[in-house]
Amino acid sequence: MAQAVSIQRLLNEFERLPGIGPKSAQRIVYWLLNRDPAQVKNLADAIIDVKDSVHFCRRCFNYAEDELCDICNSVEAGRRNASIICVVSEPRDITAIERTGEFNGSYHVLGGAISPMEGVGPDDLTIRELLQRLGSESVVEVMLATNPNVEGETTAIYLSRLIKPLGIKTTRLASGLPVGGDLEFADEVTLGRAIESRYEL
Amino acid sequence: MAQAVSIQRLLNEFERLPGIGPKSAQRIVYWLLNRDPAQVKNLADAIIDVKDSVHFCRRCFNYAEDELCDICNSVEAGRRNASIICVVSEPRDITAIERTGEFNGSYHVLGGAISPMEGVGPDDLTIRELLQRLGSESVVEVMLATNPNVEGETTAIYLSRLIKPLGIKTTRLASGLPVGGDLEFADEVTLGRAIESRYEL
Repeated sequence: MAQAVSIQRLLNEFERLPGIGPKSAQRIVYWLLNRDPAQVKNLADAIIDVKDSVHFCRRCFNYAEDELCDICNSVEAGRRNASIICVVSEPRDITAIERTGEFNGSYHVLGGAISPMEGVGPDDLTIRELLQRLGSESVVEVMLATNPNVEGETTAIYLSRLIKPLGIKTTRLASGLPVGGDLEFADEVTLGRAIESRYEL
Repeated sequence: MAQAVSIQRLLNEFERLPGIGPKSAQRIVYWLLNRDPAQVKNLADAIIDVKDSVHFCRRCFNYAEDELCDICNSVEAGRRNASIICVVSEPRDITAIERTGEFNGSYHVLGGAISPMEGVGPDDLTIRELLQRLGSESVVEVMLATNPNVEGETTAIYLSRLIKPLGIKTTRLASGLPVGGDLEFADEVTLGRAIESRYEL
């Protein structure tokens, strides 16, 4: 055996990460072995810290370090528009939309999308909490930004049927997003254009 | 700002790693956020552990957890050939050679290659330690497996001039066309070298 046990262990841990194969893992591990111990400890600490300090925002279910996430805090402080809620499947979709700079409202993270195939029904998502928000906050528009794939479309249609009867405008991101793709990986221009030309359901 | 501080910090740490761009870092961090805390702690622990427990082998300067690395221990135990030393620049080169299964001798890691451009001279490498080994161990052949680039070639030539007068056979890894490769796509230098060192069938 050519590899020290602790090196092999770290290689295994890195290979578990998404998008990291054996060659990338090896490159990273040898790079870490050549670094200053303090620098390496920073990485380990950041990993531990993120799990200790990050939980879900009480209001929108984005990742947060306080009770509310940074975006909900901005809404509270009046720096963002409270009357429009963008509904997304996952917190990472918020990052993608924020990068476009086209949206200045608040968010709501469903925690997934309706998928009979994977046994995910409406009750598994934060739909009840969204409806509670629509009852208590003065919302004018709900922008449904679930992924442009089967599950996302299903979820959007399901939500629009619940929300429209409340007299709230319900919009969907425009086509222009590649169908079957992931919102997370859309480029800023395409995603920005999609927000700009969103249409009413 | 859409990102929690600890998430941004971990993103920065991952982006520092070789071969990891912003998108890969984001993918990994969101993946970690969805994992079990224990699983994530395993990764952090493995990172800390590798720096705590790995140092250089006292004899060959490979990475080791004990005083000697696994390979030197195998040589000591008589399971590997002590009479041939393969000289490499970095510990990762050992992994590459071990994967071939073609070599069963011992190693010596120089810790780099002679490079006047980067201010690396013979004294910055473990050349003195190599010569001490040649004096105390009964070595028949030294195989110079530094990289086939300017620095690696310079280092190999420098070492062969020191070692040959000791009456020890000095060999160099063959350069030529990659096996399974296309002649059409070989670079001129490689193809030239392959012609130069052609062998008779």
